[in-house]
Amino acid sequence: MSTAWASRYAQRTRGIKSSAIRELLKITQRPEVISFAGGLPASDVFPTERFREACRKVLDQPAHLALQYGATEGYEPLRKMIARHIARYGIQARTENVLITSGSQQALDLIGKLLINTGDRVLVEAPTYLGALQAFDVYGAEYVSVPSDEDGLRTDQLEASLRSGPKFMYVLPNFQNPGGTTLSEGRRHELVLVADRYGIPIIEDDPYGQLRYEGEHLTPLVVLDRENLRRDNGYSIGNVIYLSTFSKTLAPGLRLGWIVAPPDVIAKLVQLKQGADLHTSTFAQIVAYEVARDGFLDEHVKLIRRVYRERRDVMLEALAEHFPPQVSWTRPKGGLFLWVELAEGMDAQRLFETALKENVAFVPGDSFYAPNGHQEAGRRHLRLNFSAAPPEQIREGIRRLSVAVKRQLDELLPLAVR
Amino acid sequence: MSTAWASRYAQRTRGIKSSAIRELLKITQRPEVISFAGGLPASDVFPTERFREACRKVLDQPAHLALQYGATEGYEPLRKMIARHIARYGIQARTENVLITSGSQQALDLIGKLLINTGDRVLVEAPTYLGALQAFDVYGAEYVSVPSDEDGLRTDQLEASLRSGPKFMYVLPNFQNPGGTTLSEGRRHELVLVADRYGIPIIEDDPYGQLRYEGEHLTPLVVLDRENLRRDNGYSIGNVIYLSTFSKTLAPGLRLGWIVAPPDVIAKLVQLKQGADLHTSTFAQIVAYEVARDGFLDEHVKLIRRVYRERRDVMLEALAEHFPPQVSWTRPKGGLFLWVELAEGMDAQRLFETALKENVAFVPGDSFYAPNGHQEAGRRHLRLNFSAAPPEQIREGIRRLSVAVKRQLDELLPLAVR
Repeated sequence: MSTAWASRYAQRTRGIKSSAIRELLKITQRPEVISFAGGLPASDVFPTERFREACRKVLDQPAHLALQYGATEGYEPLRKMIARHIARYGIQARTENVLITSGSQQALDLIGKLLINTGDRVLVEAPTYLGALQAFDVYGAEYVSVPSDEDGLRTDQLEASLRSGPKFMYVLPNFQNPGGTTLSEGRRHELVLVADRYGIPIIEDDPYGQLRYEGEHLTPLVVLDRENLRRDNGYSIGNVIYLSTFSKTLAPGLRLGWIVAPPDVIAKLVQLKQGADLHTSTFAQIVAYEVARDGFLDEHVKLIRRVYRERRDVMLEALAEHFPPQVSWTRPKGGLFLWVELAEGMDAQRLFETALKENVAFVPGDSFYAPNGHQEAGRRHLRLNFSAAPPEQIREGIRRLSVAVKRQLDELLPLAVR
Repeated sequence: MSTAWASRYAQRTRGIKSSAIRELLKITQRPEVISFAGGLPASDVFPTERFREACRKVLDQPAHLALQYGATEGYEPLRKMIARHIARYGIQARTENVLITSGSQQALDLIGKLLINTGDRVLVEAPTYLGALQAFDVYGAEYVSVPSDEDGLRTDQLEASLRSGPKFMYVLPNFQNPGGTTLSEGRRHELVLVADRYGIPIIEDDPYGQLRYEGEHLTPLVVLDRENLRRDNGYSIGNVIYLSTFSKTLAPGLRLGWIVAPPDVIAKLVQLKQGADLHTSTFAQIVAYEVARDGFLDEHVKLIRRVYRERRDVMLEALAEHFPPQVSWTRPKGGLFLWVELAEGMDAQRLFETALKENVAFVPGDSFYAPNGHQEAGRRHLRLNFSAAPPEQIREGIRRLSVAVKRQLDELLPLAVR
């Protein structure tokens, strides 16, 4: 290929590291490797029989609906179902507040396209979802990172960061990827109030909210924002855009996510989505609707919770049994991930290499930090997925990982002693 | 909604007219309206039974394949099938040259993202595909428009336009949307040579190429470019990116298109697609593969050709029967559209309004011109789709449209006589 092309590339791919996760996934697909690296839902709980019925039904109807072009906004009964479904979490939305996207990755891309001009700052958690950084990077985003702890984003450190004038904040309040942490109720209130005071919109990304294995569901930021609105406090209104997806509850292969936002924000996003892919597959949308309807999704989510809760517990037990006391980890109340902190002096990248020799994989922490955003912390962290592997593999995988961990620790200790 | 939001929007949606076609489609969906406005394939030829079989088969296999996350590049057997399929048109591609996109609209978006920086010029035909303008607009494209005639883009006017330094050229060589015209073999050679000489890449958009109803298939630009390469003429190489789609041959509801490009261009596009939607629906891809395989697609395309050729002929006959001699139209050898030129002094926008009163719809021509690109010509043109309506509706629709046309002509004539 020619240098003629290379010189024509926009700056847009410069500096974008190809997704570390996806590159790793390729290495870790050897059958002998137990992988905690992906963010994959468990294939064995996909409701295949229900999909089979749904396809039959959809293709018995006049097929022009499922196979023909559709509206950019999405399949109306599906949008309506989503509006009804999220009402149980207090989110008041009508059909016109819901835009169907091609996975919630597309939601992030459209939001980047709408809001980010080159050099604009985005406030993110440290660590945060790698895919969001990838989506925002192409629009020339700069980042302000706010550290988080076991109660999520540290709101006590928020105002200092807001003074640098970020365009918006991107937050995952429930069972965060990669941290596994949940933003506490008190901090939710603080976050929304501060955002309102500064007039800075919040993008609330909630792919895992329904997958809670213990405790009570906490109030979504978008609901707290509405309550402020009702109190008519004089601050800006409709300040939160809410994102979610069917990827963790039905099947990621559908690529179906959604955005909940005020109608005029939806209208702008619809314009951008027209140019981006016209609309999301009508076929996938209508099949998903037929699968999810009549309460099936709720029943199915209960099954997923049972299966994933068991896997989380197995992983936590195995960690407690095998890992040395110098290493700690989060105890997520839901979601797909937990976050391990290595002992001082340890290195997650090097651990990754030795772990692969033990036939076990994870994602080193540094991928989850925005540039200049506490990457040094990333070096001591790693993300473990507990949803994809069955319990016996989780036990064996953690045992293998502990071998690599102890070896690195042993190499360090003599140094410390000397 | 707050003004706080409005002030945060990037420039990206400013100046983008919401797709005229999609807005019109809403008006024209009343059942009494015969619509030639959309670009819809005929729903009655969708291979529904084959889809039913494919879904059964896909969901009988281990479902993790179709319902789980997949590779950004696309489902490998589908990429391989596409590479094999386009070989019959002389396009030599391997699996690694093919990237599956969420419709070819996404291909346009990814190309815009990769190549366009704000203010960059894109060379387009006048008229050209509206969706391409929408995709490129968000990246701040400016345009250089080159007029076309019945043999497609006027290559004799090309070099003058190239001196303004466009980043790339965007061309639809076969049965162009909206013109219905086909770039002649001679002009194809000229175009590729000039592009090579100036080192300007060509985006060859070919959604309709397989739907040829008469004559011989002409050589794709990407093939001519390769032949130049083989002659080792010292010009830049691998200068053409080729796009196509299943939307017109299988079903647009799948949202499946593809890009054929040199591997290092594909690698850049894959990075951008990761951030845009991770990957295209695995479910849609695998179902499409099962539908298309074992020669079914070829057989099905023959059926579509038969049906659409008849509809084109019916429309051409009805136009000849009902339309006044002051109005002319293209005679497309394939595709979905023909392009009507009204008499001098007539106005397609006003005609649209009176036509709607006669319960017939089309798309006025001005939507298909880039800003500052011969819009005055658009005012006298309109696009008619002949694929969606059955023959008896086409006859009746053209009769109705002729009533509106004659009325506007009659209003003009006395003025001319006076």
